[in-house]
Amino acid sequence: MKPLILITNDDGFAAKGLRLLDETAMEFGDVVVMAPEGNASGKSHSLTTSRPLRVREIKRTEGLCVYACDGTPVDCVKLATEYFCPKRPDLVLSGINHGSNSSINVLYSGTMGAVIEATALGIDAIGFSLLNHSPNADFTACVPYVRHLIGRVLEQGLPAEISLNVNIPNLPADQLRGIRICHEAKAQWLDSFEQRIDPQGRPYWWLTGKFACSDPPETSDEWALAHGYVSVVPIHPDFTHYPAIEQLQGLSAMQ
Amino acid sequence: MKPLILITNDDGFAAKGLRLLDETAMEFGDVVVMAPEGNASGKSHSLTTSRPLRVREIKRTEGLCVYACDGTPVDCVKLATEYFCPKRPDLVLSGINHGSNSSINVLYSGTMGAVIEATALGIDAIGFSLLNHSPNADFTACVPYVRHLIGRVLEQGLPAEISLNVNIPNLPADQLRGIRICHEAKAQWLDSFEQRIDPQGRPYWWLTGKFACSDPPETSDEWALAHGYVSVVPIHPDFTHYPAIEQLQGLSAMQ
Repeated sequence: MKPLILITNDDGFAAKGLRLLDETAMEFGDVVVMAPEGNASGKSHSLTTSRPLRVREIKRTEGLCVYACDGTPVDCVKLATEYFCPKRPDLVLSGINHGSNSSINVLYSGTMGAVIEATALGIDAIGFSLLNHSPNADFTACVPYVRHLIGRVLEQGLPAEISLNVNIPNLPADQLRGIRICHEAKAQWLDSFEQRIDPQGRPYWWLTGKFACSDPPETSDEWALAHGYVSVVPIHPDFTHYPAIEQLQGLSAMQ
Repeated sequence: MKPLILITNDDGFAAKGLRLLDETAMEFGDVVVMAPEGNASGKSHSLTTSRPLRVREIKRTEGLCVYACDGTPVDCVKLATEYFCPKRPDLVLSGINHGSNSSINVLYSGTMGAVIEATALGIDAIGFSLLNHSPNADFTACVPYVRHLIGRVLEQGLPAEISLNVNIPNLPADQLRGIRICHEAKAQWLDSFEQRIDPQGRPYWWLTGKFACSDPPETSDEWALAHGYVSVVPIHPDFTHYPAIEQLQGLSAMQ
């Protein structure tokens, strides 16, 4: 039986990056797309709890169903898995995101929220991002990497509780140097808000900021991306820092 | 000089659990509260990117300023640190949440999103949650634990990049058995949506679900909480699964 691949993103069902992902995925199996109606960037792992969700069927052809949902990327993964997929998906894909999700951007990313949710549900998952924010970004050079990783993960599976965060430099195909398996680089967003004054003289704050990552090690995703490599970071949904459990035993003694 | 403590939550600035936290924190230093205007549960690490933020000053007394912000808990931490705190906070507290944030609930929690953001900014942080969802929950039994942990963390600091996820059983003070340093229990949310039909005959889906955690080990937070202990889980903002980097090296070889 053909594998079933569920696809979502955080740029919305109509995004160019998603279209390329569903075309490539259809080489491997049947595809269900459920993606947000519009832009859900920065939605991280958020859920919609204060109102119910609505779903629109956008397209239904041989091997491909596309739905738009008015929830978050995580809502899409949960709802599609439970109600819209004809069987449990063999693989969840998210993206291809218009813009980087390297380093600590995983924290904020709706693309990666969907991937981590799939892993929490016990389904193998891969998030793809191209380092180009433009709605018209050219995703052509991503195809061989996307195809390779989908094929390998379908064939061999991922270790339990591990998903992949894949970032692709914005370079022509002949300048991409291959894949490196990495860890997240340590980084920070600085000056994250800009204060402005409205026409009534009242202040408001816009999110902005500069990504700061100084001298990332060769083992990190930022180094790989800066040197023309596709970065693949294995991530997992358990935030426990295990070595610190022993280190913090003293905290449990109350006077 | 007195320490500066920044407080937020995901239940909104008017929540009862936050009031208890700011009263206890004021025993240790000056307090700035910046919390969402209303309920922001399930907001995880999400950021507000599509519109600017507004802030209302709610209260200003000796040693305490309270602001309400129309953004997420993560927005509150970023914006307060950058624009509303008179100096860089020595400690960020989040909560006390009305309801559990144990196990994989960290993924979805706005309370813990704020804590992880503080850690990403390099500030020690603790998230507190009581296992009682009621807006009128009785937080009295939490006080000695909250006081102990704030005091110890201000005194000794936390290891780099580590924050604490503290959950407190909903029990009378004399039935709480102390603190255990734990890891997250593995768990899942099952049957996460309920389908209903509106008066026009169209379907909609409400988020719901059952928390399923079977036979958690004695080292986990779910075991601790079920046995009357306050659970303290050290968490960190780097989602990389380091052992898997070696394990997945084979993925980088493309045919």
